[in-house]
Amino acid sequence: MELLQSYVDDVILRGLNEDINGIDVTADFLLSADHESDAYLMAKDTGVLCGMEFAERVFALVGEGVTFIPKAKDGDRIQYGDILATMHGKTRTMLKGERTALNALQHLSGIATETRRCVDIVAGTKATITDTRKCMVGIRAMQKYAVRCGGGKNHRFNLSDGAMLKDNHIDACGGIIPAITQLRQHIGHMMRIEVEVRTLDELREALEAQADIIMLDNMDNDTMQEAVRITNGRALLEASGGITHDTLRGVAETGVDIISIGALTHSVKAFDISMKWGALPLNSDRKNAVG
Amino acid sequence: MELLQSYVDDVILRGLNEDINGIDVTADFLLSADHESDAYLMAKDTGVLCGMEFAERVFALVGEGVTFIPKAKDGDRIQYGDILATMHGKTRTMLKGERTALNALQHLSGIATETRRCVDIVAGTKATITDTRKCMVGIRAMQKYAVRCGGGKNHRFNLSDGAMLKDNHIDACGGIIPAITQLRQHIGHMMRIEVEVRTLDELREALEAQADIIMLDNMDNDTMQEAVRITNGRALLEASGGITHDTLRGVAETGVDIISIGALTHSVKAFDISMKWGALPLNSDRKNAVG
Amino acid sequence: MELLQSYVDDVILRGLNEDINGIDVTADFLLSADHESDAYLMAKDTGVLCGMEFAERVFALVGEGVTFIPKAKDGDRIQYGDILATMHGKTRTMLKGERTALNALQHLSGIATETRRCVDIVAGTKATITDTRKCMVGIRAMQKYAVRCGGGKNHRFNLSDGAMLKDNHIDACGGIIPAITQLRQHIGHMMRIEVEVRTLDELREALEAQADIIMLDNMDNDTMQEAVRITNGRALLEASGGITHDTLRGVAETGVDIISIGALTHSVKAFDISMKWGALPLNSDRKNAVG
Amino acid sequence: MELLQSYVDDVILRGLNEDINGIDVTADFLLSADHESDAYLMAKDTGVLCGMEFAERVFALVGEGVTFIPKAKDGDRIQYGDILATMHGKTRTMLKGERTALNALQHLSGIATETRRCVDIVAGTKATITDTRKCMVGIRAMQKYAVRCGGGKNHRFNLSDGAMLKDNHIDACGGIIPAITQLRQHIGHMMRIEVEVRTLDELREALEAQADIIMLDNMDNDTMQEAVRITNGRALLEASGGITHDTLRGVAETGVDIISIGALTHSVKAFDISMKWGALPLNSDRKNAVG
Amino acid sequence: MELLQSYVDDVILRGLNEDINGIDVTADFLLSADHESDAYLMAKDTGVLCGMEFAERVFALVGEGVTFIPKAKDGDRIQYGDILATMHGKTRTMLKGERTALNALQHLSGIATETRRCVDIVAGTKATITDTRKCMVGIRAMQKYAVRCGGGKNHRFNLSDGAMLKDNHIDACGGIIPAITQLRQHIGHMMRIEVEVRTLDELREALEAQADIIMLDNMDNDTMQEAVRITNGRALLEASGGITHDTLRGVAETGVDIISIGALTHSVKAFDISMKWGALPLNSDRKNAVG
Amino acid sequence: MELLQSYVDDVILRGLNEDINGIDVTADFLLSADHESDAYLMAKDTGVLCGMEFAERVFALVGEGVTFIPKAKDGDRIQYGDILATMHGKTRTMLKGERTALNALQHLSGIATETRRCVDIVAGTKATITDTRKCMVGIRAMQKYAVRCGGGKNHRFNLSDGAMLKDNHIDACGGIIPAITQLRQHIGHMMRIEVEVRTLDELREALEAQADIIMLDNMDNDTMQEAVRITNGRALLEASGGITHDTLRGVAETGVDIISIGALTHSVKAFDISMKWGALPLNSDRKNAVG
Repeated sequence: MELLQSYVDDVILRGLNEDINGIDVTADFLLSADHESDAYLMAKDTGVLCGMEFAERVFALVGEGVTFIPKAKDGDRIQYGDILATMHGKTRTMLKGERTALNALQHLSGIATETRRCVDIVAGTKATITDTRKCMVGIRAMQKYAVRCGGGKNHRFNLSDGAMLKDNHIDACGGIIPAITQLRQHIGHMMRIEVEVRTLDELREALEAQADIIMLDNMDNDTMQEAVRITNGRALLEASGGITHDTLRGVAETGVDIISIGALTHSVKAFDISMKWGALPLNSDRKNAVG
Repeated sequence: MELLQSYVDDVILRGLNEDINGIDVTADFLLSADHESDAYLMAKDTGVLCGMEFAERVFALVGEGVTFIPKAKDGDRIQYGDILATMHGKTRTMLKGERTALNALQHLSGIATETRRCVDIVAGTKATITDTRKCMVGIRAMQKYAVRCGGGKNHRFNLSDGAMLKDNHIDACGGIIPAITQLRQHIGHMMRIEVEVRTLDELREALEAQADIIMLDNMDNDTMQEAVRITNGRALLEASGGITHDTLRGVAETGVDIISIGALTHSVKAFDISMKWGALPLNSDRKNAVG
Repeated sequence: MELLQSYVDDVILRGLNEDINGIDVTADFLLSADHESDAYLMAKDTGVLCGMEFAERVFALVGEGVTFIPKAKDGDRIQYGDILATMHGKTRTMLKGERTALNALQHLSGIATETRRCVDIVAGTKATITDTRKCMVGIRAMQKYAVRCGGGKNHRFNLSDGAMLKDNHIDACGGIIPAITQLRQHIGHMMRIEVEVRTLDELREALEAQADIIMLDNMDNDTMQEAVRITNGRALLEASGGITHDTLRGVAETGVDIISIGALTHSVKAFDISMKWGALPLNSDRKNAVG
Repeated sequence: MELLQSYVDDVILRGLNEDINGIDVTADFLLSADHESDAYLMAKDTGVLCGMEFAERVFALVGEGVTFIPKAKDGDRIQYGDILATMHGKTRTMLKGERTALNALQHLSGIATETRRCVDIVAGTKATITDTRKCMVGIRAMQKYAVRCGGGKNHRFNLSDGAMLKDNHIDACGGIIPAITQLRQHIGHMMRIEVEVRTLDELREALEAQADIIMLDNMDNDTMQEAVRITNGRALLEASGGITHDTLRGVAETGVDIISIGALTHSVKAFDISMKWGALPLNSDRKNAVG
Repeated sequence: MELLQSYVDDVILRGLNEDINGIDVTADFLLSADHESDAYLMAKDTGVLCGMEFAERVFALVGEGVTFIPKAKDGDRIQYGDILATMHGKTRTMLKGERTALNALQHLSGIATETRRCVDIVAGTKATITDTRKCMVGIRAMQKYAVRCGGGKNHRFNLSDGAMLKDNHIDACGGIIPAITQLRQHIGHMMRIEVEVRTLDELREALEAQADIIMLDNMDNDTMQEAVRITNGRALLEASGGITHDTLRGVAETGVDIISIGALTHSVKAFDISMKWGALPLNSDRKNAVG
Repeated sequence: MELLQSYVDDVILRGLNEDINGIDVTADFLLSADHESDAYLMAKDTGVLCGMEFAERVFALVGEGVTFIPKAKDGDRIQYGDILATMHGKTRTMLKGERTALNALQHLSGIATETRRCVDIVAGTKATITDTRKCMVGIRAMQKYAVRCGGGKNHRFNLSDGAMLKDNHIDACGGIIPAITQLRQHIGHMMRIEVEVRTLDELREALEAQADIIMLDNMDNDTMQEAVRITNGRALLEASGGITHDTLRGVAETGVDIISIGALTHSVKAFDISMKWGALPLNSDRKNAVG
């Protein structure tokens, strides 16, 4: 997997420990330790898959004895009825891992699906879709991975790996130009500097200060179009704030380079995936995902 | 706070460590360590507040020097423009805590708001709204707290503190009655047993087996109404599966006792709250929350 | 194993890190890394075995190169001289794991043995033996598993998964009935409510309030017998407080449903098990455990 | 406290997290957040107190708002009825901390009491009482602290800070003398070397090898007396194995220097301490502990 | 402190737990709990101070009762005999924290001092001194903070927050230009791309590919001078590899923008600082540090 | 490995998590998941190897798919050009583990090399070289292992496993003799007592008090020679303080038993080892390490 194994394991163990306090009273009291079952994962909606290796690893960490055969992979477009994986093995292990695996699969596929929808909406423009730092605590790297699976790009990971000047930074330094000047004296050479502006005057000041990226905060499309014209390639322009599916295409057509959308990670709608018990139904193969 | 301080701290530290890798390059390179600011939290939507003590604690864990004065408390109904808290102190500390505090406040208030909306829809019926185990990894106790703040109740916390029989458990034991019989031999006396049924025949079998709670899985309203009539108070009935805002009232009016909704925690829409920099605007007090 | 692998591993690693600070000065300075030995585990007392999978896992976590062959399993009745497992492999690994494995095996088997003794004492009555929350810090799930291996049942795991009203709760609410009424408004449907009473009047009040379980706190046998008569099946009755091996049968014969015994986990006498070095002695097989 | 604050906190947090999964359903649903109570800790047996600072710290870590006033301190001899501490503050906080505090107090005081009993039995002889590595996982430092509070001394903490040669080490090196010779080439100068012997011949060999301490493994008293005579001060002698209260004095009178007793930590009988709710009863002060 | 409190605390607790296994046998057995002392920290060499807030925090985490008064601050140039801090309070606490505090102070001041030395050597040229990822495990953020205190800048923090193309990346993509093209399709807009080159031909290819930064790997000064001339400001140039104090000035004078030095963090010479016991000597104030 | 697997894994995971925040942007965006490479580790200096099993384990923890074949082992003397290991497998995995593996290998080999140099300098005298507690936070056990690989011995691990009296301990007790007397009453029998002295008078007092080891703090060689004469084998003598390569032989020739050197672990010069990409060069085998 692209994500570090140790990171993924840590998330899974946190999930398993939350979901099991020593015993699964239903499974452990009713099923013998060697009871075996078949099961499969099936898409109940149309979108983009994310989290397969996470799901597979969940069952390995619950215990030995489950074979997990993926039938699709992260980033694949999937639709209702697609078989995503088949499983065979210890029923107790499958039952103990089911919720943790599905919770992650559904959340990550929800992010990938929504990201892909946004990416498709802006197709043909120069705009790329990026996430923000508005992430769920403890799984930021996984959420940002899901954004990549959906065809989006990642904004800075955190406060340490990218500089972003907002009002209070600028006020404290006496303007955009002194702020950027001061910042360049200290910041490492691998980092770019982004400035948030709310007016075209601020934009001009940011351009003069040679900001690498300029965020147009809650501007209307006409103003953004003007901003693109003024900037003329001297900096990357990022649109941000209050963008919906309905307005997204219009924003992209203003010519901005980047559109960042907090909702990709802060307001995720779970993508419906079921774990079905029993052998795979006949003819299910023809429904399979195509990457 | 109702939640254990050590639990909350652990979540916060995980969040802060994700968001800061040693330095906030923007704040630390631009603002002196003793620079101070005012700020306030303001609701940008209408709903139920949740996460205030979490937010307050974030700034305490970032460092000393920030005074946080709550103006509303968890469970309060709030509306656009309400001032939720005022803050004064070290600007660096406020900037470093801002994202972690807002991410949690918005997520938890989103859950509380949606729960309250569902609770209000079923008002006047006997149905209570409950959550499920479809939670975000690592913050289940916080999410379940938010459901309570919204007026909902909690289903079992995990696989260890409540028994819930599903198809494969029942199949492995040869039916609902043998399954419950076997379970009662092992299970502690503090636990109730819930059985998932899909037909009225299964319902009758579950009643005969004296299940404490019976989940009616994806039944239509007419069948559920019949289930209520058959059960006649001998067990609690839980409706589950595919319930939307539009169908919720109808489900509640069938007479079921519990309606469990996975989306309360698996598909959370962030509730919009802003951190505004500067002193509180005049006349803001009249907008304040009433609990 | 019934317990979650990740939970068990976490306990073992805590134990190994406590017992080894980088080096076993005796083994590492005296034995070459490839020195191999045989060893076996032998019961030195009569009772019930618990902790075999834990012990096996200890050696796997110390390092590679040890084969552990169990000859008995958790829950088995064992007696002096029974061979519980044989081992072969790296001597250093066996020496480094020995203490951690034995400490757990002896403690858990001590709990299972004492539980079984209590269960046997009450055999033929309707009473079941349960544990309490009087557990050793950090291994509660393991201790409760040992109680199950000894034939006991588990009381609530913690303060979150079962409601238990005591004096100060009741006083604060103005009586048992208002307390239970208030509790039912908030508590999830999977939870039962237990009330602690000290007199038959309190018992009657608890019955009127429809408590699910009533704990008879430090009552004498005659009063408990009367309590059973009054209750007449309307609630489960739990006897608790100051029960010894000598008085246990009498308590059970009063007709109570549950007898909870804190000493099962708070005052554990280690069950003697030795790790013997060398090959298995001749004829040892006939002494083997019978489950 | 003698123990490192961070170590104690870590143990407490593990305990609290085990005992509370987000909510104390009884206290949080029944008592308002600002409800206050008085309570006190009372000894229900005669022995030695250990764990007071741990108990006090538990309530501080649950939350603010509880004043804890110790009336006795670790190492004090206490008797039935002694008031050990008084408390006042938030009832919820006291209820949430009660079990974790008492579990530790009772366990540690149990160790200190039993150690003191053994120390008293050997009073007047030259023998000192020590613990072993047969400890509960995760709280070894606390258990060894309790042994010190009871007047005992600590054996090595773990495999890394003291060398102890047993049969298989000696066999692998071809005898006691080559084993000690080899060990001295590698071991740091701060460490002593102890050898386990089972016969007087082995004792003589260990003396010749200039072992610092020699453990007499399961020897009878006559043999130990002879061992003392032979040794004549050239090494410390440690008696170990199968010693009971009845045989302890006899062992001490053989003239050995150290008697190590695994049961001090592996088979602890909890010392009974109650948390009583309400104000301190009149005249309770005269019962107070004297250190 | 600039570093996140929770990060610093985590490092300190790791250190304290390594250095104290439950007891400081010397201090706890010899000094009463209320024994108090004075002490002060004194520089034994000339350089740049780093780690004062870390040191102060160590004593707070060991326990209460020590007052620490800093007399100099991170980044100050200090010389032999300068008093860096005075302390008063519990002797046990001071003794338990001494080693952990000094180890960090000496290591971090060692880094800051060496960094400052390098920065001073290149003074007047356009070159800035940066660190690398050749850091000590577990304290990277602290080491990079020390580099900043010494006047250096930070290179990328890790593999996730900056792209750096080396031979095998380039080979796998079929050259520098296709590699950078591919990378730009995926990488977030906040990141710069650096390419490692070993010849002027590779430099020209990197310039054509519009790399943001180009690392000149182990080039001689003449070649680097030519590289500066060719580049002519189109990219930042970083010199790296085998640079010593003797050769550093020459490298800087070639006109490169950045000189990265792994030894700043991988080969740290501890800066000598003593903790002296007793009150501050007379006239010590005149020796104090000037920032 | 001599070190506990779980300890090593914990260090490695800390390192990997520091170095990778979810993604290696260069490798993951440029190389396909199944791209494979050859590589080898080569010594770039002359010294003693340490950390091979650590390095091998790094790649296993990053992920599956890399074969690591060691060509030398810890403790081997190595020289420029020696091939230390060959590797084949997934390029991404190798790139993600490279820095973490090399950082440790270079640091540990640096310690082992410097230790061996000191050991060689004192060869033929009775002096042994030991480390101190002046270690890097979080890797003390690894550093002390490296000292052993270089032929040195370990001083006490921490404050808990060896008693060392310094000025303030002695002052608080009223002299060396009362201090040692008091200590012997409390300290376990496995521990030795070391006293730090600065004059020959203090030495005589320590001898009279029967200290096990006496540290001669910053004495000149003549005084130490006299100390050896006075001591005449009644205690071990440790020289400490300000010893350099130039003065080390002279110190050893005074006849002291132990020379402790803080710089072994507090001022480590990384030992240069490269990871070269591509197949092993021809004739490389003849350069291989000889243990």
